[in-house]
Amino acid sequence: MRLTDVNSIKEALLEGKVVRIYHSGERNPKISEILEIARKKGVPIYRKDGERFSAEVSPIKYADFEFIVKKALTGGSFILFLDNVVDQRNIGACIRTAEFFGAAGVVLPKRRGGSIQEGAVKASAGAVFHIPIARVENFASAIKKLKKLGFTTLAADLDGEDLEAVSLLLPAAVVIGGEDRGVSRPVKKQCDFVVKIPGVGKVNSLNLSVAAGIFLYTLSRQKY
Amino acid sequence: MRLTDVNSIKEALLEGKVVRIYHSGERNPKISEILEIARKKGVPIYRKDGERFSAEVSPIKYADFEFIVKKALTGGSFILFLDNVVDQRNIGACIRTAEFFGAAGVVLPKRRGGSIQEGAVKASAGAVFHIPIARVENFASAIKKLKKLGFTTLAADLDGEDLEAVSLLLPAAVVIGGEDRGVSRPVKKQCDFVVKIPGVGKVNSLNLSVAAGIFLYTLSRQKY
Repeated sequence: MRLTDVNSIKEALLEGKVVRIYHSGERNPKISEILEIARKKGVPIYRKDGERFSAEVSPIKYADFEFIVKKALTGGSFILFLDNVVDQRNIGACIRTAEFFGAAGVVLPKRRGGSIQEGAVKASAGAVFHIPIARVENFASAIKKLKKLGFTTLAADLDGEDLEAVSLLLPAAVVIGGEDRGVSRPVKKQCDFVVKIPGVGKVNSLNLSVAAGIFLYTLSRQKY
Repeated sequence: MRLTDVNSIKEALLEGKVVRIYHSGERNPKISEILEIARKKGVPIYRKDGERFSAEVSPIKYADFEFIVKKALTGGSFILFLDNVVDQRNIGACIRTAEFFGAAGVVLPKRRGGSIQEGAVKASAGAVFHIPIARVENFASAIKKLKKLGFTTLAADLDGEDLEAVSLLLPAAVVIGGEDRGVSRPVKKQCDFVVKIPGVGKVNSLNLSVAAGIFLYTLSRQKY
């Protein structure tokens, strides 16, 4: 994957994910800072006139779902599931929020909405390099497994109960559904609670990553 | 302004903001629904082969700042200020969230970050047509005025106190700063509290509209 966003490049570099850097000789404080880190780390820098400042990074290394489950269990924390979320910017913002609030990991489906491209890396502000991300085949059976292990499981849905009415004991898992379809029916059926964020306006929903942010913030407050 | 997003068109139509509709004869359930509403409302429909389905809407009608202040005072609610926010999608998502949680209005600057274009209309899911939006010249003096009227005033900042440590009495105003610069210094200086959302991750901040969502959610919980 080739990154062109300087903030994403810096994060990738600090995490040892950058294979090489391209630049045209153009300078600004951010570029200079990145080049200095790259030199210290021994990352090759290719200079060529007219080249856009960019970095080649190694592909995202997905974690095992079991690793994330164990981390959530031992840390008493929470896991974010993104069910059919397709917008890269939403995926990235959700991963950033999950990392910010100390989630054990993020789970994506193996098919639709399961790939992380530059849009997500950029929107994540580099968080994709800091938090374990797993891909699973079947969300419903993953949730079933978590319930057996004692997780509180939540699905976000406009027709759910009020978020404040449910008891959010950790460890927990929250499933956020895609932009159009929401959380799929079999997954909702498996969850302990189907919850919504209570609103009073004419618009009946929030942006997906905003809603995810409020759920994760609420879960994080159970912890500290 | 010309809108091409069907959801935005529907919202604009319901609010009586659509001047005319263009379409090529292409049909799907959403388009059919919009055309039916348009016919009932007497909005002219221009059909032409190859025309992209779109709608011409009347420009956003900005509200007076005083109107929003009065609404917040009488309703015991809150106002969102966006200080130098430039990304249209962030502006739209913030307006959507403000409307969702029943804010009295949104305040934008007269200069930078003060214009609403199609990206914001779309990201707002039509909320730009439902909530009063005002533009003011000077944020610092607007905040000063609100303090005199008894508002609690907050500026979001990574170096602030924890959100949960401050007492959030309504009516209130919260200022969210732009993507790069944050809330400008003179505005921060005027606010009663400079607050942050506490995080534990390696990324030190949230996406702007996610952060705004958590602030507005927290304020809305003071009300109900």
